[in-house]
Amino acid sequence: MDNLKEKMDMDSPVFLAFCTYATIVILKMMMMSFMTAFFRFSRGAFANLEDVADKPAEERKKMIKADPDVERVRRCHQNDLENIIPFVVIGLLYSLTGPDLSTALIHFRVFAASRILHTVAYVCPLPQPSRALTWMIGMVVTFSMAYRVLTTASYL
Amino acid sequence: MDNLKEKMDMDSPVFLAFCTYATIVILKMMMMSFMTAFFRFSRGAFANLEDVADKPAEERKKMIKADPDVERVRRCHQNDLENIIPFVVIGLLYSLTGPDLSTALIHFRVFAASRILHTVAYVCPLPQPSRALTWMIGMVVTFSMAYRVLTTASYL
Amino acid sequence: MDNLKEKMDMDSPVFLAFCTYATIVILKMMMMSFMTAFFRFSRGAFANLEDVADKPAEERKKMIKADPDVERVRRCHQNDLENIIPFVVIGLLYSLTGPDLSTALIHFRVFAASRILHTVAYVCPLPQPSRALTWMIGMVVTFSMAYRVLTTASYL
Repeated sequence: MDNLKEKMDMDSPVFLAFCTYATIVILKMMMMSFMTAFFRFSRGAFANLEDVADKPAEERKKMIKADPDVERVRRCHQNDLENIIPFVVIGLLYSLTGPDLSTALIHFRVFAASRILHTVAYVCPLPQPSRALTWMIGMVVTFSMAYRVLTTASYL
Repeated sequence: MDNLKEKMDMDSPVFLAFCTYATIVILKMMMMSFMTAFFRFSRGAFANLEDVADKPAEERKKMIKADPDVERVRRCHQNDLENIIPFVVIGLLYSLTGPDLSTALIHFRVFAASRILHTVAYVCPLPQPSRALTWMIGMVVTFSMAYRVLTTASYL
Repeated sequence: MDNLKEKMDMDSPVFLAFCTYATIVILKMMMMSFMTAFFRFSRGAFANLEDVADKPAEERKKMIKADPDVERVRRCHQNDLENIIPFVVIGLLYSLTGPDLSTALIHFRVFAASRILHTVAYVCPLPQPSRALTWMIGMVVTFSMAYRVLTTASYL
């Protein structure tokens, strides 16, 4: 416990590394918004009538539709929400448990790489199991960090 | 203010308890991904053509569909995103405002229990108002913590 | 680096301001759940059969539908998840990099205002580009904070 207290300090290379990689994966997730907007405009597929108000009246209704490419990007974005946010939350707590810098860096780097490759595999799309594998690797990293948090800092 | 400064310390039983319960509810949320995958395979209902590439060509198109059980699990997952993430964010700030350990533990335990029961009520499904009640209890816990954060640490 | 270490302290007006604004935008996001529930009941459009179990048997099936107003509120809620959570994560790390209080307050206030106006523009709805503008302003605030995090605390 005392050992833990010493390590729970916001001021460490591990925490700096966490800041960097958390920011990178969150920025990657935010990029999906722009990709959705790009596909909505290029495919002419919108979700709201006010978004097509400058189009000719007879075309407006037709442009409120679900396009396969738009939906694919949105599923990828949703998968990011479901996986990157748990990484950020558990990664923050993990980086406060005082792991070795090298171990922490492996976790953060593997996760960031797996999510970037997941997006490539989803949007292209690449044949399975590329997407399933990249998703699973990210999951395993988060579970590994959660295991350390629960074994180091548990207070039920 | 000085009192607050003293209490805003990452090194306390309250913060350890927060780490534990935040990790538990995030892991519970991540379990929904596996439950979605399980229902997708058992119901034969997928979202992407590349996920059914190993199936006979004539069956592939039919397997790209929305199955009621899959959609139910996905709504449950979405509800977790909408409720567990606010809990984690506000719970982190709350645990830095120096609440009594016993008060904090009540908040964390009631929230964790309410979300686990919410999932049971949603996926089974149990008759209403079981799901509405478990959802509301989780909401009230988060509001109670947000009230303490805003009254203790407010700086507009 | 030493300078950074000094500034990375949970006990500062910047961090208090972050607590306040993060709580405000998260509460705003949670309000969308209640707005969804309100529209579901007023429009008679539900997602689950158990939610309409007290209605006459012949009406139940008809009430499981997607209503345009409900879907609009849900898209607004989804947009909040996609934008407010990145703000909270990057804002937390940003507030630990020791920015000027006045600069930090500008970031937090502009973001909170932009998201509240975004909701108004989305739900009313107001003519475009009001929604696109409020969304973009929030994005720019988060990017500006991410830039500071990556330039101040980067450790790849």
